[in-house]
Amino acid sequence: MANSILPASAVNIYALGGLQEVGKNTYCIENDDTLIIVDAGIMFPEQGILGIDYVIPDYTHLKNVRNKIKALFITHGHEDHIGAIPFLLQNVNIPVIYAPRLAAALIKIKLEENHISNKIKIVEYTEEDQIIVDTFKVQFFRVTHSIPDSYGICIDTPQGRIVTTGDFKIDLTPVGEDISLSKIAKIGEEGVDLLLSDSTNAEKEGYTLSERSVISSIFEIFSKTSGRLIISTFSSNISRIQQIVEACIRFNRKILIVGRSMENTVNISRQYGYIKIPDSSLITADKLKDYKNNEIVILCTGSQGEPMAALSRIANGEHSLIKICPGDTVVFSSSPIPGNGASVNAVVNQLVRCGAEVINNSIFSNLHASGHPSKQELRIILKLFKPKYFMPVHGEYRMLRLHGEIAQTLGIPKENIFILANGDSLILRKHEITEGKRIQTDDIYIDGKDFTGLSTAVIRDRNILANDGMVAVLMSIDSRTNSILAMPQIVTKGFIYMEDENAIKTIEEARQIAYKELKNIMNGKATFGEIKNTMKTSLSQFLYSKTYRSPMIIPIIMNQLENK
Amino acid sequence: MANSILPASAVNIYALGGLQEVGKNTYCIENDDTLIIVDAGIMFPEQGILGIDYVIPDYTHLKNVRNKIKALFITHGHEDHIGAIPFLLQNVNIPVIYAPRLAAALIKIKLEENHISNKIKIVEYTEEDQIIVDTFKVQFFRVTHSIPDSYGICIDTPQGRIVTTGDFKIDLTPVGEDISLSKIAKIGEEGVDLLLSDSTNAEKEGYTLSERSVISSIFEIFSKTSGRLIISTFSSNISRIQQIVEACIRFNRKILIVGRSMENTVNISRQYGYIKIPDSSLITADKLKDYKNNEIVILCTGSQGEPMAALSRIANGEHSLIKICPGDTVVFSSSPIPGNGASVNAVVNQLVRCGAEVINNSIFSNLHASGHPSKQELRIILKLFKPKYFMPVHGEYRMLRLHGEIAQTLGIPKENIFILANGDSLILRKHEITEGKRIQTDDIYIDGKDFTGLSTAVIRDRNILANDGMVAVLMSIDSRTNSILAMPQIVTKGFIYMEDENAIKTIEEARQIAYKELKNIMNGKATFGEIKNTMKTSLSQFLYSKTYRSPMIIPIIMNQLENK
Repeated sequence: MANSILPASAVNIYALGGLQEVGKNTYCIENDDTLIIVDAGIMFPEQGILGIDYVIPDYTHLKNVRNKIKALFITHGHEDHIGAIPFLLQNVNIPVIYAPRLAAALIKIKLEENHISNKIKIVEYTEEDQIIVDTFKVQFFRVTHSIPDSYGICIDTPQGRIVTTGDFKIDLTPVGEDISLSKIAKIGEEGVDLLLSDSTNAEKEGYTLSERSVISSIFEIFSKTSGRLIISTFSSNISRIQQIVEACIRFNRKILIVGRSMENTVNISRQYGYIKIPDSSLITADKLKDYKNNEIVILCTGSQGEPMAALSRIANGEHSLIKICPGDTVVFSSSPIPGNGASVNAVVNQLVRCGAEVINNSIFSNLHASGHPSKQELRIILKLFKPKYFMPVHGEYRMLRLHGEIAQTLGIPKENIFILANGDSLILRKHEITEGKRIQTDDIYIDGKDFTGLSTAVIRDRNILANDGMVAVLMSIDSRTNSILAMPQIVTKGFIYMEDENAIKTIEEARQIAYKELKNIMNGKATFGEIKNTMKTSLSQFLYSKTYRSPMIIPIIMNQLENK
Repeated sequence: MANSILPASAVNIYALGGLQEVGKNTYCIENDDTLIIVDAGIMFPEQGILGIDYVIPDYTHLKNVRNKIKALFITHGHEDHIGAIPFLLQNVNIPVIYAPRLAAALIKIKLEENHISNKIKIVEYTEEDQIIVDTFKVQFFRVTHSIPDSYGICIDTPQGRIVTTGDFKIDLTPVGEDISLSKIAKIGEEGVDLLLSDSTNAEKEGYTLSERSVISSIFEIFSKTSGRLIISTFSSNISRIQQIVEACIRFNRKILIVGRSMENTVNISRQYGYIKIPDSSLITADKLKDYKNNEIVILCTGSQGEPMAALSRIANGEHSLIKICPGDTVVFSSSPIPGNGASVNAVVNQLVRCGAEVINNSIFSNLHASGHPSKQELRIILKLFKPKYFMPVHGEYRMLRLHGEIAQTLGIPKENIFILANGDSLILRKHEITEGKRIQTDDIYIDGKDFTGLSTAVIRDRNILANDGMVAVLMSIDSRTNSILAMPQIVTKGFIYMEDENAIKTIEEARQIAYKELKNIMNGKATFGEIKNTMKTSLSQFLYSKTYRSPMIIPIIMNQLENK
């Protein structure tokens, strides 16, 4: 095949996202004729950085081999596993998406919102299903995670068996269904050539707290609180929401759901039976006044301090329906993701300022349980699958490394453990694995409702603008006569405080320098490129010497060709 | 007095910085004739935000009452208490700075670096001193903190006694000298009208770990490590540095000190006897090759992931003298400050990628002890001072509130507890306190080596530029003839990916809209302001509708008045 990068009949395994990062999970299994993709996620950027909403993988490689793509398999319905599907479908045609029931429902909404629901067939799978895609045979095993209907995937190829865990923890007292440890054991007994396993919590000793253990903390808070309760958690954490609902019913409180993503997931989850709330327990905002404070729970998004989420807007008094009153208790049933600490603190301070009491994981234990496995769980999964080769996925570099070390202590030889980056590939041939060629990968930044994405160059420009602002220099010339038509003008934004007299003096000096340089270079026969470069160099140097700042210099040439 | 805002003879107490924030501590005690300032600190902004190095208070009020300023008292030598002295001295004349010995030495270096050392007299004080400033009598009590020579300050005024703790913890096994609990008790017995006390850790139950307890963790790491040790901590944490030095001597390792601020504080502290390192224990970078890996400790800055600090540069391979080798162990003897989590993670991942093992507070307990008091220590200090009125300082709003609640449980009436913001003032008259007028305060942003600071407007511009970039529209007109000389030009930076064909189309459409709008408005007799506003409105709306982004629109008019 023209676009093939593989030796004949070997199976190539690589990630376009998900390695050395937490997010945009996209794993590919490809041979000469067939390519299947596991998950198509987005990544959330560090809070508030440069106006980016999220990051998706560069799909160039998939476009190059588009004819081979036969199916997308989804492990579960979290955004870092399904969020990029609309973007992926803009780039390539995918005949069918196989997804668990809840994920399928969430994907359908996503495709409808983007008006591309007619482009793709979605097939729900369960643990009993086996799906044949050309020479690949795919089966599923149920895992426990913080959203119902989470699965790991086992792919049999003519060259050997590949297993990916998806996101999981071994929750022995889950809120939903059990993890299929016996199926995992059976797959392991039959023989696994390559295991891909979740590394998020590879730093953590012991076991991750059961989701069920959060409920006793929630019950305790309910029993102690006499005012309104405002509870914030991830809208994607459906198991948590179910537990909060149970507490509401037990303590006779009505529930008001606030925030678009919270409303969406609760609606879907109720519709499919994953969250059980009697209609009589739900109220709308206009009914708040009909209930006493101790009969109300407001369940909302914004536990990470996201500025546009419901909780931030409530804290800042910008929410049209909900205002904080003294006596309110706000519960953060979450942990701040690294990088969000400052945003969360700002929201907490604002809530306290409005008179609320704030309860979070740092002052009340077991208010949040991670959805990912700690070291003992990783060891159990490695012991059950007994893979010949191991590739830790879903984690920053350090977590992948630590996960690799865990595998090594359990007897997997170091040379069989692959700590890879996105785009690195492995070649599976006759149950043997070797490293393959690099595949093109990159980060594509998505801003607003844009479908094309922003390039790294745009982000680099924003970075410079953010740090030191910009200085535009306008030159009005006539290139036919090689003459300067006016003194250069200088416009600055975000660079210097233009009310300050030193600043005014500096800019006037810069203008004189620009004029002198322009005269010099126009004496010869300069190209526009040469004029611009000269301006950039001389103004950068001058402004740095005066201000120790390096603004973006934007030379603009107005060439007066037209006759008046 | 012309500028006085006070009722005759009353004492006004207010903060220009330090309330509802951690940093830029600046507390003022002012009456009709006299103003003394306690501390003059900077605040570090959230990591990497908008090119700001630090934040200082707006000193406008001090300029207005400049003739009253008699002295600046310093509690200890940390940057959030002394860092703004050069800026303060640019704004007002201060006859004398009273500072403990180590702080005095650090201030002198700071003033020399800024070439203003001749402007100010610095007087060292000890616990025995009493200093009379007009009608105010000032005395000191030693506290324990993470830097030697830390003091609280007691100010007797004709209207009553004010005490400020400075930063402290009650460390019963300190690395340096003890806290003067008996002097604190004596001051309390004599009667305290108003107490200002450190609220940083008011959320934490129990006692803060003793600095001495960190040494056993450090010793354990030394005894287990066979390769090079690279240890990063705050350069200001002189007690910690002394302990690391002791471990180096005990385990026969030489010390290389890396990073300008680390070198400076170690030099000063050695010179004044606060850190004891035999000359034979110190080596320079060129001597590294003469020692085995297990004979080397590299002590460096950068424990908060600061991009320009030594550890970041080492991790990124940008340090000219030090490269990470496999077998190196990097120790973070610190906790990430909220907001720095992502930067610290990035450095950790990069270090692991280079082959280092990384040990931090999350995987090895007691690697860091806070320098601030937990709840039990706060209670003890309140019990000893027995203040009539209480004003929690040095903390975010929530910490101030919690500290206030602690005071209330100890019997201070709620109406005697003041949770204030910067600029709020208290009036002390005959041992009674009432709330006073607001005093002007603001944040001034310092970038590079600028002395004038950036206004909030510049920062707002940077924020817009950072989030959505900019679109400049250039209009070439002749205002005498009211004619348009050329099609408008559009220049974008950080807004849209200009290689993308949709983007090119959008910008061309924007150009046509600009031309049409310009023609429309030039039909009448429009001012330049009207032309600019029309451009901003029409282009903002159009670009938002196409991209869901709101770039900064910069209309630029080139008016061709000159005759060619």
